[in-house]
Amino acid sequence: MEITRLQNITFIGAGNVAFHLIRAFKSSGRDIVQVFTRSEKTANEISAEYHIDAITDISKLTLNAEVYVISVPDNAINKLLQELNVKDKFLVHTSGSLAMDILSGNSQNYGVFYPLQTFSRTRQLSIDDVPICIEAINKRYEKLLFDLAGSVSQDVRHLNSRERSIAHLAAVFASNFTNHMYSIAEEVLSKCDLPFDLLKPLIQETAAKVQDHIPHTAQTGPARRKDIDTIEKHLDILKSYPEFRNIYRRISEDIINRYKNTTRDDKL
Amino acid sequence: MEITRLQNITFIGAGNVAFHLIRAFKSSGRDIVQVFTRSEKTANEISAEYHIDAITDISKLTLNAEVYVISVPDNAINKLLQELNVKDKFLVHTSGSLAMDILSGNSQNYGVFYPLQTFSRTRQLSIDDVPICIEAINKRYEKLLFDLAGSVSQDVRHLNSRERSIAHLAAVFASNFTNHMYSIAEEVLSKCDLPFDLLKPLIQETAAKVQDHIPHTAQTGPARRKDIDTIEKHLDILKSYPEFRNIYRRISEDIINRYKNTTRDDKL
Repeated sequence: MEITRLQNITFIGAGNVAFHLIRAFKSSGRDIVQVFTRSEKTANEISAEYHIDAITDISKLTLNAEVYVISVPDNAINKLLQELNVKDKFLVHTSGSLAMDILSGNSQNYGVFYPLQTFSRTRQLSIDDVPICIEAINKRYEKLLFDLAGSVSQDVRHLNSRERSIAHLAAVFASNFTNHMYSIAEEVLSKCDLPFDLLKPLIQETAAKVQDHIPHTAQTGPARRKDIDTIEKHLDILKSYPEFRNIYRRISEDIINRYKNTTRDDKL
Repeated sequence: MEITRLQNITFIGAGNVAFHLIRAFKSSGRDIVQVFTRSEKTANEISAEYHIDAITDISKLTLNAEVYVISVPDNAINKLLQELNVKDKFLVHTSGSLAMDILSGNSQNYGVFYPLQTFSRTRQLSIDDVPICIEAINKRYEKLLFDLAGSVSQDVRHLNSRERSIAHLAAVFASNFTNHMYSIAEEVLSKCDLPFDLLKPLIQETAAKVQDHIPHTAQTGPARRKDIDTIEKHLDILKSYPEFRNIYRRISEDIINRYKNTTRDDKL
């Protein structure tokens, strides 16, 4: 009988993405059959907290789930695929940057389930509005993934492997690099023992602004105003931080170039 | 009689900061005596919208306000100060990066009122939680500024000129450069005609995370995981965008260096 719903799910990997998905799938009424993790400690946590069969020996993987979700770091997936035997069970990965086809050696039936969000173990997070980017080997599996994703998020999109890798790269700028800007800011403040909370409303507002405006129109600051005096002052303050100074200079140059033919009086 | 409250306020400059402050001061029951702007159009808008005496000729400035708030771009302030005559009236500026003393040629009584936020004309914004960084020539004026700032924000702090310039530099990283990361992300997405709204929940969550966690512990992504394969893939995608490629490389290197001695399995 052909399945119409991915009711029984097995996770291969138990990092932050897996944790958040397990929680969301359980809440939406799906069953988690097994979780494989190499860590005894994580396996014990999962057994204790979720009452799921958590295994550390991949040969104990059962074949009674309808979908096998691989959620391990990108650089651990090749080794994993060499050990993994799911016959031709439906196999998906959750990676932004890996092509769907890397799974083709392990199953004839495969796809991708990529939630575009930054996950930390310690944060409770509703994935209700998180875009889930899906891709599958054929329409039938695509439909099953749409159904699965739709049960945990309102925002399900089909992205092919090329599009997904672009989305992932964009996410690195919008999230990872942004967070690094916050880190640098924190370190700059610590020069004067100023607390990071001074910047929290600013950080919130900067993110809130681009929910309604395109980033290009929201740009403010010395580089946007071509205020060379202030830029020079900042480079001088940073003279004992050569890496921050280089980053400051390079981003400022890029902003100046990009807004070359416009003027503006917005102020930070 | 010595004043105990800065009830009557005149603005010199009518950019985004001035607009937000005028609105907040009026709501808190202060009176705006005059606004000086070089733009006829802005003067007309202010007269029409706020029923304030808006002047474009600086010689028409009256001396019946208790405080004169200069809110013009940093690179316009020197020219302005040459024209400005407020006798020894209390004079403040709203700049993050300019020292308080630049006002010393225009008055014996001066200070700084710097709201640490990014202001856009088109956004309604409560400044209730915006840190207001104040500084004044003496305790008496400091007290008056604390009172004024306290009537529009719950977060008033004393920062000296050195501290304020550091805070401003940190804000450039946390806000201006962050917004530029959003811009680059948008441009990367447009390579595949992917819409920017794909990144909005991610941007919100990245900013929300550092409200409770220090940025250092919230860092995720390929560079954080030292995932060189993914970094190389991204640099390859960016090969037709040399500036973005340079920025990507430099920030990734800085992240790798900064987290050299730690491991982590967080995943974007």
